[in-house]
Amino acid sequence: MENEAEKKWGFEVKQELNREREAEVAAFRYAIVSLMESVDKNDPRPVIPLGHGDPAAFPCFRTAAVAEDAIVDSVRSSMFNCYAPMFGLPLARRAVAEYLNRDLPYKLSADDIYITLGCMEAVEIILTVITRLGAANILLPRPGWPFYEGFAKRNHLEVRHFDLLPERGWEVDLEAVEALADENTAAIVIINPCNPCGNVLTYQHLQKIAETARKLGILVIADEVYGHLAFGSTPYIPMGVFGSIVPVITLGSISKRWIVPGWRFGWLATNDPNGVLQKSGIVGSIKACLGVRSGPSTLIQVKLNPSLLEGINSDMEFAVQLAKEESVIVLPGIIVGMENWLRITFAIDPSALEDGLDRMKAFYYRHACQEALNL
Amino acid sequence: MENEAEKKWGFEVKQELNREREAEVAAFRYAIVSLMESVDKNDPRPVIPLGHGDPAAFPCFRTAAVAEDAIVDSVRSSMFNCYAPMFGLPLARRAVAEYLNRDLPYKLSADDIYITLGCMEAVEIILTVITRLGAANILLPRPGWPFYEGFAKRNHLEVRHFDLLPERGWEVDLEAVEALADENTAAIVIINPCNPCGNVLTYQHLQKIAETARKLGILVIADEVYGHLAFGSTPYIPMGVFGSIVPVITLGSISKRWIVPGWRFGWLATNDPNGVLQKSGIVGSIKACLGVRSGPSTLIQVKLNPSLLEGINSDMEFAVQLAKEESVIVLPGIIVGMENWLRITFAIDPSALEDGLDRMKAFYYRHACQEALNL
Repeated sequence: MENEAEKKWGFEVKQELNREREAEVAAFRYAIVSLMESVDKNDPRPVIPLGHGDPAAFPCFRTAAVAEDAIVDSVRSSMFNCYAPMFGLPLARRAVAEYLNRDLPYKLSADDIYITLGCMEAVEIILTVITRLGAANILLPRPGWPFYEGFAKRNHLEVRHFDLLPERGWEVDLEAVEALADENTAAIVIINPCNPCGNVLTYQHLQKIAETARKLGILVIADEVYGHLAFGSTPYIPMGVFGSIVPVITLGSISKRWIVPGWRFGWLATNDPNGVLQKSGIVGSIKACLGVRSGPSTLIQVKLNPSLLEGINSDMEFAVQLAKEESVIVLPGIIVGMENWLRITFAIDPSALEDGLDRMKAFYYRHACQEALNL
Repeated sequence: MENEAEKKWGFEVKQELNREREAEVAAFRYAIVSLMESVDKNDPRPVIPLGHGDPAAFPCFRTAAVAEDAIVDSVRSSMFNCYAPMFGLPLARRAVAEYLNRDLPYKLSADDIYITLGCMEAVEIILTVITRLGAANILLPRPGWPFYEGFAKRNHLEVRHFDLLPERGWEVDLEAVEALADENTAAIVIINPCNPCGNVLTYQHLQKIAETARKLGILVIADEVYGHLAFGSTPYIPMGVFGSIVPVITLGSISKRWIVPGWRFGWLATNDPNGVLQKSGIVGSIKACLGVRSGPSTLIQVKLNPSLLEGINSDMEFAVQLAKEESVIVLPGIIVGMENWLRITFAIDPSALEDGLDRMKAFYYRHACQEALNL
């Protein structure tokens, strides 16, 4: 083996990609780190972090006992250790739909809700979907939440900033929005209650935003992760209220209101009373993006010789026929790249496994050609 | 408002993007769904799922009480409700390092471990990193786990398949690997114990794989999510054992061995005793990819007028100086796109908040120019 120092490897992160990479990482993270490094190590006083906020880090901000109990009960039940369905447990999707429906003039169903790994993943998913549209740019608020820039850059999506106006209580500069948008604009992001400003937008202003978006023919992405954490006298109104004016994708999570950001429970909701998102293919794209998120368990392989079976010419035909006649589901090898093999898990109840193999045996004898039976 | 049916929207999923999108979604998921639909609804017998395996779905496969207790204790402690650090809790990273070190000839430190949302995210992260390399193709096993294709396609990474040879106990066809690789090949994926084959590769064969990878100058991505779930007589050997021959990225999770896939606890480990991954920038790229994964809490804004302060010309200078002199950390507005504003969270202990504001006040009076003090 040649000297390690001399060894040339075929992989190396390219410089320009490095730069793109850096752009991905949320700038404020680095800012906080560098500020922490500025602290005088000899200062006897405790460091007071007023920059990056996470209430859960402080004992005085503890989530409700009912929330803790819910987790403990579900762990103890051992009913929620398995893979979650692609879009989340129906139970959870229904609960989120009912929670959001309390504020909506129409009703969301569980099918309108997609459970995500915190609101963060919901943001990542929707920005990926936006790129799927072949769209070239997205409108983001300034000031705003830096991760939107990060995900947009990663998706090679051009970012166009509109201002939030301090003199108007951080309302959206709608004139600027109209000036920024063009035929390549896919969506506008509205964070309400606002992060980082903390203000709450009025019903009237939200309606104006919806009407402007409709006029421009663009989607509204409503980041409502701080929903119902409304300070001041302006009541919090979800953007979904205007879903019949413009389709709205609502992003939310339990992390802020329940002070459990570490639990990573967020959601994406499609407010689509007129079926616009469905028709445009965006719902399908959301499902596809959420589709690559979990995995199968281990198994044994069975090689299939279709020539020994009558009227069955492939592993797929075998699996379909077996499902039809015996209600037994096996995975055709073609799916994992091995035609005419079958994948059979034994990670189920032993009795069910035996029953399943018996049914397969019966199925085989029913379909085996004479030649096979004579073997 | 014009008729809804006539309304033209600027967003629509393009056909070719649809196709790419479909490619992303794991094929076997659709296969299972269509097979489930093939089942005779009138069959009184229970459906037996031998296709997609998830032991946790069956009462006979219950995780250890010690695992359940660990979750319950951490929830009850209320110490783990906050955002996790970018790369995972140091506690958890150290535990995984110690777990892996039991089988390694050298020692991993907590810094070599990155906690991910199940092994799935570890796969996603490393394939994204591979794209960062500017690499054009990756070598995947056939049969293999379909999600690798999905993530590769999503990252526009060309997939080249090498066969696992049934007649040789599903060993890697190393001749094929050498023939497939070229100067644009970044890595080879080895799944051991094998999914879907279930076999375990021998020490000798793993060493040959490592030597082949070194010869080709490519990285080894070792998917060991089934590590220590070894059936048959061949003992399980982690690829990391050969880390001094070739740099190895190990992917793993607790989901299989502890039967808790739903807990989404996985990891990515850099087996890099010679510092090759560090030097090539891959470690930095992994950190960057993991960097965009969490968010700040809500806050109040303070507008800053540097002209009233002596020797402080911007929000960043203010924040750095404040950190130095008062050990108080605030976020410069420039980070969220608002120069000369400060972001101050109040989501901390009230006493600390008061103390922090008092220190800022003292800081202000110390730096205010005469004009300001006369106001």
